[in-house]
Amino acid sequence: MDYDKKVSLAVIKRLPKYYRYLGDLLDNNVTRISSKELSKKMNATPSQIRQDLNNFGCFGQQGYGYDVSLLYSEIKTILGLDKTYSVIVVGAGNLGNAILNYTQFQKRGVSFAAIFDTDAQKIGTTINGVEIKDIKNLGNFLEQTSVDIAVLCVPKSSAAEVAKVVIKGGVKSIWNFTPLDLENTKDVVVENVHLSDSLMTLFYKLNEGFILERYVKK
Amino acid sequence: MDYDKKVSLAVIKRLPKYYRYLGDLLDNNVTRISSKELSKKMNATPSQIRQDLNNFGCFGQQGYGYDVSLLYSEIKTILGLDKTYSVIVVGAGNLGNAILNYTQFQKRGVSFAAIFDTDAQKIGTTINGVEIKDIKNLGNFLEQTSVDIAVLCVPKSSAAEVAKVVIKGGVKSIWNFTPLDLENTKDVVVENVHLSDSLMTLFYKLNEGFILERYVKK
Repeated sequence: MDYDKKVSLAVIKRLPKYYRYLGDLLDNNVTRISSKELSKKMNATPSQIRQDLNNFGCFGQQGYGYDVSLLYSEIKTILGLDKTYSVIVVGAGNLGNAILNYTQFQKRGVSFAAIFDTDAQKIGTTINGVEIKDIKNLGNFLEQTSVDIAVLCVPKSSAAEVAKVVIKGGVKSIWNFTPLDLENTKDVVVENVHLSDSLMTLFYKLNEGFILERYVKK
Repeated sequence: MDYDKKVSLAVIKRLPKYYRYLGDLLDNNVTRISSKELSKKMNATPSQIRQDLNNFGCFGQQGYGYDVSLLYSEIKTILGLDKTYSVIVVGAGNLGNAILNYTQFQKRGVSFAAIFDTDAQKIGTTINGVEIKDIKNLGNFLEQTSVDIAVLCVPKSSAAEVAKVVIKGGVKSIWNFTPLDLENTKDVVVENVHLSDSLMTLFYKLNEGFILERYVKK
Protein backbone atom coordinates (compact mmCIF):
# COMPACT_ATOMS: atom_id res chain seq x y z
CA MET A 1 0.00 0.00 0.00
CA ASP A 2 1.43 3.34 -0.97
CA TYR A 3 -0.11 5.83 1.40
CA ASP A 4 2.14 8.44 2.94
CA LYS A 5 0.11 8.35 6.07
CA LYS A 6 -0.52 5.00 7.68
CA VAL A 7 -1.90 4.50 11.15
CA SER A 8 0.53 2.76 13.49
CA LEU A 9 -0.18 -0.82 14.51
CA ALA A 10 -0.08 0.19 18.19
CA VAL A 11 -3.09 2.46 17.61
CA ILE A 12 -4.94 -0.20 15.59
CA LYS A 13 -4.42 -2.74 18.35
CA ARG A 14 -6.10 -0.38 20.84
CA LEU A 15 -9.20 0.15 18.68
CA PRO A 16 -10.88 -3.15 19.63
CA LYS A 17 -10.55 -2.09 23.27
CA TYR A 18 -12.28 1.22 22.51
CA TYR A 19 -14.95 -0.71 20.70
CA ARG A 20 -15.52 -3.03 23.68
CA TYR A 21 -15.65 -0.15 26.15
CA LEU A 22 -17.99 1.94 24.03
CA GLY A 23 -20.22 -1.13 23.64
CA ASP A 24 -20.36 -1.44 27.43
CA LEU A 25 -21.28 2.25 27.71
CA LEU A 26 -24.09 1.81 25.17
CA ASP A 27 -25.35 -1.22 27.11
CA ASN A 28 -25.51 1.06 30.14
CA ASN A 29 -27.36 3.78 28.19
CA VAL A 30 -24.49 6.27 28.36
CA THR A 31 -24.92 8.59 25.36
CA ARG A 32 -21.90 10.85 25.70
CA ILE A 33 -18.52 10.72 27.40
CA SER A 34 -15.51 13.03 27.80
CA SER A 35 -12.05 11.80 26.83
CA LYS A 36 -11.21 12.18 30.53
CA GLU A 37 -13.96 9.79 31.63
CA LEU A 38 -13.20 7.37 28.80
CA SER A 39 -9.52 7.45 29.72
CA LYS A 40 -10.29 6.51 33.33
CA LYS A 41 -12.26 3.49 32.17
CA MET A 42 -9.55 2.47 29.73
CA ASN A 43 -6.59 3.08 32.02
CA ALA A 44 -5.00 5.48 29.51
CA THR A 45 -4.40 9.24 29.44
CA PRO A 46 -7.03 11.58 27.91
CA SER A 47 -4.34 12.85 25.55
CA GLN A 48 -3.56 9.34 24.27
CA ILE A 49 -7.25 8.75 23.58
CA ARG A 50 -7.56 12.05 21.71
CA GLN A 51 -4.43 11.30 19.70
CA ASP A 52 -5.55 7.74 18.88
CA LEU A 53 -8.94 8.85 17.62
CA ASN A 54 -7.61 11.92 15.81
CA ASN A 55 -5.84 9.54 13.44
CA PHE A 56 -9.22 8.86 11.89
CA GLY A 57 -10.76 12.29 11.98
CA CYS A 58 -12.47 14.55 14.43
CA PHE A 59 -14.96 12.53 16.45
CA GLY A 60 -15.07 14.59 19.64
CA GLN A 61 -16.24 18.11 20.32
CA GLN A 62 -14.58 20.41 22.82
CA GLY A 63 -16.76 20.83 25.90
CA TYR A 64 -19.14 18.08 24.76
CA GLY A 65 -16.91 15.03 24.52
CA TYR A 66 -17.77 12.04 22.36
CA ASP A 67 -21.17 10.91 21.16
CA VAL A 68 -20.93 7.28 22.31
CA SER A 69 -23.23 5.81 19.70
CA LEU A 70 -21.59 7.72 16.82
CA LEU A 71 -18.04 6.87 17.92
CA TYR A 72 -19.03 3.23 18.42
CA SER A 73 -20.44 3.06 14.93
CA GLU A 74 -17.38 4.76 13.36
CA ILE A 75 -14.96 2.39 15.12
CA LYS A 76 -17.17 -0.49 14.03
CA THR A 77 -16.65 0.61 10.42
CA ILE A 78 -12.92 1.24 10.90
CA LEU A 79 -12.52 -2.28 12.31
CA GLY A 80 -14.44 -3.73 9.38
CA LEU A 81 -17.19 -5.08 11.62
CA ASP A 82 -19.89 -3.96 9.21
CA LYS A 83 -18.86 -6.68 6.76
CA THR A 84 -18.85 -10.47 6.61
CA TYR A 85 -15.78 -12.56 5.95
CA SER A 86 -15.45 -15.95 4.32
CA VAL A 87 -13.19 -17.94 6.64
CA ILE A 88 -11.59 -21.38 6.50
CA VAL A 89 -9.98 -23.17 9.44
CA VAL A 90 -7.04 -25.46 8.70
CA GLY A 91 -6.55 -28.02 11.46
CA ALA A 92 -9.56 -29.56 13.24
CA GLY A 93 -7.81 -30.19 16.56
CA ASN A 94 -8.86 -28.71 19.90
CA LEU A 95 -8.04 -25.14 18.99
CA GLY A 96 -9.71 -25.43 15.58
CA ASN A 97 -12.76 -26.78 17.39
CA ALA A 98 -12.74 -23.94 19.90
CA ILE A 99 -12.59 -21.35 17.13
CA LEU A 100 -15.40 -22.99 15.14
CA ASN A 101 -17.57 -23.09 18.24
CA TYR A 102 -16.84 -19.60 19.52
CA THR A 103 -20.13 -17.82 18.78
CA GLN A 104 -18.49 -14.43 19.32
CA PHE A 105 -16.63 -14.74 16.01
CA GLN A 106 -19.81 -15.32 14.07
CA LYS A 107 -21.31 -12.21 15.67
CA ARG A 108 -18.26 -10.31 14.40
CA GLY A 109 -19.04 -11.21 10.78
CA VAL A 110 -17.15 -14.49 10.40
CA SER A 111 -18.76 -17.01 8.06
CA PHE A 112 -17.00 -20.38 8.13
CA ALA A 113 -16.76 -21.88 4.63
CA ALA A 114 -14.88 -25.09 5.45
CA ILE A 115 -12.46 -26.85 7.78
CA PHE A 116 -9.51 -28.90 6.56
CA ASP A 117 -7.70 -31.74 8.28
CA THR A 118 -5.53 -34.76 7.48
CA ASP A 119 -7.35 -37.18 9.80
CA ALA A 120 -9.46 -39.67 7.81
CA GLN A 121 -11.67 -40.21 10.87
CA LYS A 122 -12.60 -36.54 10.96
CA ILE A 123 -12.99 -35.89 7.22
CA GLY A 124 -16.67 -35.80 6.24
CA THR A 125 -17.87 -35.02 9.78
CA THR A 126 -18.88 -31.53 10.85
CA ILE A 127 -18.03 -29.05 13.59
CA ASN A 128 -20.81 -26.60 14.37
CA GLY A 129 -22.41 -27.44 11.02
CA VAL A 130 -19.24 -26.87 8.98
CA GLU A 131 -17.83 -29.81 7.05
CA ILE A 132 -14.30 -31.10 7.61
CA LYS A 133 -12.66 -31.64 4.23
CA ASP A 134 -9.49 -33.48 3.26
CA ILE A 135 -6.53 -31.12 3.41
CA LYS A 136 -5.40 -32.58 0.06
CA ASN A 137 -8.28 -30.64 -1.50
CA LEU A 138 -7.32 -27.30 0.06
CA GLY A 139 -5.62 -26.01 -3.09
CA ASN A 140 -8.55 -26.99 -5.32
CA PHE A 141 -11.05 -25.51 -2.90
CA LEU A 142 -9.24 -22.18 -2.95
CA GLU A 143 -9.25 -22.15 -6.75
CA GLN A 144 -13.04 -22.33 -6.69
CA THR A 145 -13.89 -20.33 -3.57
CA SER A 146 -13.00 -16.81 -2.55
CA VAL A 147 -11.66 -16.89 1.00
CA ASP A 148 -10.87 -13.77 3.04
CA ILE A 149 -9.23 -15.35 6.05
CA ALA A 150 -7.48 -18.66 6.69
CA VAL A 151 -7.11 -19.64 10.34
CA LEU A 152 -4.06 -21.85 10.76
CA CYS A 153 -4.31 -24.32 13.66
CA VAL A 154 -1.92 -26.97 12.34
CA PRO A 155 1.21 -28.33 14.06
CA LYS A 156 4.52 -26.59 13.52
CA SER A 157 5.74 -29.37 11.23
CA SER A 158 3.11 -28.63 8.57
CA ALA A 159 2.67 -24.88 9.16
CA ALA A 160 5.04 -23.68 6.41
CA GLU A 161 3.54 -26.01 3.79
CA VAL A 162 -0.05 -25.08 4.66
CA ALA A 163 0.81 -21.35 4.63
CA LYS A 164 2.29 -21.81 1.14
CA VAL A 165 -0.86 -23.48 -0.22
CA VAL A 166 -3.08 -20.86 1.38
CA ILE A 167 -1.07 -17.93 0.01
CA LYS A 168 -0.84 -19.52 -3.44
CA GLY A 169 -4.62 -19.99 -3.32
CA GLY A 170 -5.10 -16.22 -3.07
CA VAL A 171 -6.29 -15.98 0.53
CA LYS A 172 -5.92 -12.36 1.58
CA SER A 173 -5.19 -12.79 5.25
CA ILE A 174 -4.01 -15.35 7.76
CA TRP A 175 -4.88 -15.69 11.44
CA ASN A 176 -1.90 -17.74 12.48
CA PHE A 177 -2.00 -19.87 15.65
CA THR A 178 1.00 -22.01 14.66
CA PRO A 179 4.43 -21.47 16.28
CA LEU A 180 5.77 -20.36 12.88
CA ASP A 181 6.20 -16.58 12.51
CA LEU A 182 4.52 -15.37 9.34
CA GLU A 183 5.23 -11.87 8.04
CA ASN A 184 2.87 -9.43 6.33
CA THR A 185 3.56 -9.15 2.62
CA LYS A 186 1.99 -6.94 -0.01
CA ASP A 187 -0.42 -9.77 -0.88
CA VAL A 188 -1.22 -11.24 2.51
CA VAL A 189 -1.78 -9.68 5.92
CA VAL A 190 -1.08 -11.75 8.99
CA GLU A 191 -2.02 -11.70 12.65
CA ASN A 192 0.17 -14.09 14.65
CA VAL A 193 -1.22 -15.43 17.93
CA HIS A 194 1.46 -17.32 19.81
CA LEU A 195 -0.29 -18.70 22.88
CA SER A 196 2.92 -20.29 24.16
CA ASP A 197 4.66 -16.90 23.96
CA SER A 198 1.88 -15.35 26.00
CA LEU A 199 2.23 -18.10 28.62
CA MET A 200 5.99 -17.58 28.79
CA THR A 201 5.44 -13.84 29.27
CA LEU A 202 3.19 -14.70 32.21
CA PHE A 203 5.89 -17.00 33.63
CA TYR A 204 8.35 -14.13 33.39
CA LYS A 205 6.02 -11.74 35.20
CA LEU A 206 5.49 -14.38 37.89
CA ASN A 207 9.25 -14.78 38.41
CA GLU A 208 10.19 -11.17 37.79
CA GLY A 209 11.61 -10.49 41.25
CA PHE A 210 13.93 -13.48 41.07
CA ILE A 211 15.02 -12.71 37.52
CA LEU A 212 15.72 -9.04 38.21
CA GLU A 213 17.75 -10.04 41.26
CA ARG A 214 19.75 -12.62 39.32
CA TYR A 215 20.26 -10.95 35.97
CA VAL A 216 19.57 -7.26 36.12
CA LYS A 217 20.34 -5.76 39.51
CA LYS A 218 24.03 -6.60 39.59
CA MET B 1 8.32 -4.57 43.19
CA ASP B 2 10.69 -1.79 44.02
CA TYR B 3 13.57 -2.16 41.62
CA ASP B 4 14.93 0.97 40.01
CA LYS B 5 15.68 -1.00 36.92
CA LYS B 6 12.89 -3.06 35.42
CA VAL B 7 12.99 -4.60 31.99
CA SER B 8 10.34 -3.20 29.65
CA LEU B 9 7.42 -5.41 28.70
CA ALA B 10 8.22 -4.96 25.01
CA VAL B 11 11.58 -6.68 25.58
CA ILE B 12 10.01 -9.46 27.67
CA LYS B 13 7.46 -10.13 24.95
CA ARG B 14 10.27 -10.67 22.44
CA LEU B 15 12.10 -13.21 24.62
CA PRO B 16 9.83 -16.18 23.75
CA LYS B 17 10.61 -15.50 20.10
CA TYR B 18 14.35 -15.60 20.81
CA TYR B 19 13.77 -18.80 22.71
CA ARG B 20 11.91 -20.39 19.78
CA TYR B 21 14.53 -19.32 17.24
CA LEU B 22 17.44 -20.49 19.36
CA GLY B 23 15.63 -23.82 19.85
CA ASP B 24 15.36 -24.17 16.07
CA LEU B 25 19.07 -23.42 15.73
CA LEU B 26 19.92 -26.09 18.32
CA ASP B 27 17.71 -28.56 16.46
CA ASN B 28 19.81 -27.80 13.38
CA ASN B 29 23.07 -28.25 15.31
CA VAL B 30 24.07 -24.59 15.07
CA THR B 31 26.40 -23.91 18.02
CA ARG B 32 27.14 -20.22 17.60
CA ILE B 33 25.56 -17.27 15.85
CA SER B 34 26.33 -13.58 15.36
CA SER B 35 23.75 -10.96 16.30
CA LYS B 36 23.68 -10.12 12.58
CA GLU B 37 22.72 -13.66 11.57
CA LEU B 38 20.24 -13.96 14.43
CA SER B 39 18.71 -10.61 13.46
CA LYS B 40 18.16 -11.79 9.88
CA LYS B 41 16.30 -14.85 11.11
CA MET B 42 14.22 -12.78 13.52
CA ASN B 43 13.47 -9.90 11.19
CA ALA B 44 14.99 -7.38 13.64
CA THR B 45 18.12 -5.23 13.64
CA PRO B 46 21.38 -6.56 15.18
CA SER B 47 21.39 -3.54 17.47
CA GLN B 48 17.91 -4.31 18.79
CA ILE B 49 18.97 -7.87 19.55
CA ARG B 50 22.10 -6.69 21.37
CA GLN B 51 20.08 -4.14 23.35
CA ASP B 52 17.38 -6.66 24.25
CA LEU B 53 19.85 -9.23 25.52
CA ASN B 54 22.07 -6.68 27.26
CA ASN B 55 19.19 -6.04 29.65
CA PHE B 56 20.04 -9.34 31.26
CA GLY B 57 23.83 -9.23 31.13
CA CYS B 58 26.56 -9.85 28.66
CA PHE B 59 25.77 -13.01 26.72
CA GLY B 60 27.63 -12.30 23.49
CA GLN B 61 31.30 -11.84 22.76
CA GLN B 62 32.64 -9.40 20.20
CA GLY B 63 33.95 -11.27 17.17
CA TYR B 64 32.49 -14.57 18.37
CA GLY B 65 28.78 -13.88 18.64
CA TYR B 66 26.47 -15.90 20.85
CA ASP B 67 26.92 -19.43 22.11
CA VAL B 68 23.51 -20.79 21.04
CA SER B 69 23.22 -23.46 23.72
CA LEU B 70 24.27 -21.09 26.52
CA LEU B 71 21.97 -18.29 25.38
CA TYR B 72 19.09 -20.75 24.97
CA SER B 73 19.60 -22.00 28.49
CA GLU B 74 19.82 -18.49 29.98
CA ILE B 75 16.64 -17.37 28.22
CA LYS B 76 14.99 -20.58 29.41
CA THR B 77 15.82 -19.55 32.99
CA ILE B 78 14.78 -15.93 32.44
CA LEU B 79 11.41 -17.11 31.09
CA GLY B 80 10.97 -19.40 34.08
CA LEU B 81 10.91 -22.51 31.89
CA ASP B 82 13.11 -24.42 34.33
CA LYS B 83 10.23 -24.60 36.82
CA THR B 84 6.83 -26.24 37.03
CA TYR B 85 3.62 -24.36 37.67
CA SER B 86 0.45 -25.48 39.39
CA VAL B 87 -2.33 -24.33 37.08
CA ILE B 88 -6.12 -24.36 37.26
CA VAL B 89 -8.46 -23.74 34.35
CA VAL B 90 -11.79 -22.05 35.10
CA GLY B 91 -14.34 -22.78 32.38
CA ALA B 92 -14.47 -26.19 30.67
CA GLY B 93 -15.83 -24.95 27.34
CA ASN B 94 -14.10 -25.32 23.99
CA LEU B 95 -11.21 -23.03 24.80
CA GLY B 96 -10.69 -24.61 28.24
CA ASN B 97 -10.65 -27.98 26.49
CA ALA B 98 -8.12 -26.80 23.93
CA ILE B 99 -5.81 -25.48 26.65
CA LEU B 100 -6.06 -28.68 28.70
CA ASN B 101 -5.24 -30.75 25.62
CA TYR B 102 -2.43 -28.61 24.26
CA THR B 103 0.60 -30.81 25.00
CA GLN B 104 2.97 -27.89 24.39
CA PHE B 105 1.90 -26.28 27.66
CA GLN B 106 2.79 -29.36 29.68
CA LYS B 107 6.21 -29.40 28.03
CA ARG B 108 6.62 -25.80 29.22
CA GLY B 109 6.19 -26.81 32.86
CA VAL B 110 2.44 -26.51 33.29
CA SER B 111 0.86 -29.00 35.70
CA PHE B 112 -2.93 -28.85 35.66
CA ALA B 113 -4.33 -29.20 39.19
CA ALA B 114 -8.05 -28.91 38.44
CA ILE B 115 -10.71 -27.52 36.12
CA PHE B 116 -13.81 -25.73 37.34
CA ASP B 117 -17.17 -25.35 35.65
CA THR B 118 -20.80 -24.67 36.48
CA ASP B 119 -22.26 -27.38 34.24
CA ALA B 120 -23.57 -30.34 36.31
CA GLN B 121 -23.15 -32.61 33.26
CA LYS B 122 -19.43 -31.88 33.12
CA ILE B 123 -18.63 -31.88 36.85
CA GLY B 124 -16.95 -35.14 37.87
CA THR B 125 -15.79 -35.97 34.35
CA THR B 126 -12.20 -35.40 33.21
CA ILE B 127 -10.38 -33.63 30.41
CA ASN B 128 -6.98 -35.10 29.61
CA GLY B 129 -7.01 -36.84 33.00
CA VAL B 130 -7.83 -33.68 34.99
CA GLU B 131 -11.08 -33.63 36.98
CA ILE B 132 -13.74 -31.01 36.39
CA LYS B 133 -14.90 -29.68 39.75
CA ASP B 134 -17.90 -27.60 40.72
CA ILE B 135 -17.05 -23.92 40.49
CA LYS B 136 -18.81 -23.45 43.84
CA ASN B 137 -15.81 -25.19 45.41
CA LEU B 138 -13.21 -22.92 43.77
CA GLY B 139 -12.74 -20.75 46.88
CA ASN B 140 -12.34 -23.79 49.16
CA PHE B 141 -9.96 -25.47 46.73
CA LEU B 142 -7.73 -22.40 46.69
CA GLU B 143 -7.65 -22.30 50.49
CA GLN B 144 -6.18 -25.80 50.50
CA THR B 145 -4.05 -25.77 47.35
CA SER B 146 -1.28 -23.47 46.23
CA VAL B 147 -1.97 -22.38 42.66
CA ASP B 148 0.49 -20.37 40.55
CA ILE B 149 -1.70 -19.64 37.55
CA ALA B 150 -5.44 -19.49 36.96
CA VAL B 151 -6.53 -19.66 33.33
CA LEU B 152 -9.83 -17.86 32.92
CA CYS B 153 -12.00 -19.20 30.09
CA VAL B 154 -15.41 -18.17 31.42
CA PRO B 155 -18.00 -15.97 29.69
CA LYS B 156 -17.84 -12.22 30.16
CA SER B 157 -20.86 -12.27 32.49
CA SER B 158 -19.02 -14.27 35.17
CA ALA B 159 -15.45 -13.06 34.50
CA ALA B 160 -15.36 -10.35 37.19
CA GLU B 161 -16.78 -12.63 39.88
CA VAL B 162 -14.40 -15.49 39.03
CA ALA B 163 -11.41 -13.13 38.98
CA LYS B 164 -12.41 -11.91 42.45
CA VAL B 165 -12.55 -15.45 43.88
CA VAL B 166 -9.24 -16.37 42.25
CA ILE B 167 -7.45 -13.26 43.54
CA LYS B 168 -8.94 -13.65 47.03
CA GLY B 169 -7.74 -17.27 46.96
CA GLY B 170 -4.14 -16.09 46.64
CA VAL B 171 -3.47 -17.13 43.05
CA LYS B 172 -0.37 -15.25 41.93
CA SER B 173 -1.11 -14.87 38.25
CA ILE B 174 -3.96 -14.96 35.77
CA TRP B 175 -3.93 -15.97 32.12
CA ASN B 176 -7.08 -14.17 31.08
CA PHE B 177 -9.00 -15.25 27.97
CA THR B 178 -12.22 -13.44 28.95
CA PRO B 179 -13.22 -10.15 27.27
CA LEU B 180 -12.76 -8.39 30.65
CA ASP B 181 -9.54 -6.37 30.92
CA LEU B 182 -7.69 -7.30 34.09
CA GLU B 183 -4.81 -5.14 35.30
CA ASN B 184 -1.55 -6.17 36.98
CA THR B 185 -1.57 -5.34 40.67
CA LYS B 186 1.13 -5.76 43.30
CA ASP B 187 -0.36 -9.14 44.25
CA VAL B 188 -1.41 -10.55 40.90
CA VAL B 189 0.20 -10.46 37.47
CA VAL B 190 -2.00 -10.79 34.43
CA GLU B 191 -1.60 -11.68 30.78
CA ASN B 192 -4.70 -10.78 28.80
CA VAL B 193 -5.37 -12.69 25.57
CA HIS B 194 -8.25 -11.12 23.70
CA LEU B 195 -8.79 -13.36 20.69
CA SER B 196 -11.62 -11.17 19.40
CA ASP B 197 -9.32 -8.14 19.51
CA SER B 198 -6.75 -10.04 17.48
CA LEU B 199 -9.40 -10.96 14.91
CA MET B 200 -10.56 -7.32 14.68
CA THR B 201 -6.96 -6.23 14.13
CA LEU B 202 -6.81 -8.69 11.24
CA PHE B 203 -10.07 -7.28 9.83
CA TYR B 204 -8.52 -3.82 9.97
CA LYS B 205 -5.40 -4.94 8.14
CA LEU B 206 -7.60 -6.59 5.53
CA ASN B 207 -9.58 -3.39 4.97
CA GLU B 208 -6.71 -0.96 5.50
CA GLY B 209 -6.78 0.52 1.99
CA PHE B 210 -10.46 1.34 2.22
CA ILE B 211 -10.17 2.73 5.76
CA LEU B 212 -7.18 4.94 4.95
CA GLU B 213 -9.03 6.25 1.92
CA ARG B 214 -12.18 6.99 3.89
CA TYR B 215 -10.84 8.25 7.20
CA VAL B 216 -7.21 9.20 6.97
CA LYS B 217 -6.26 10.45 3.53
CA LYS B 218 -8.60 13.40 3.41
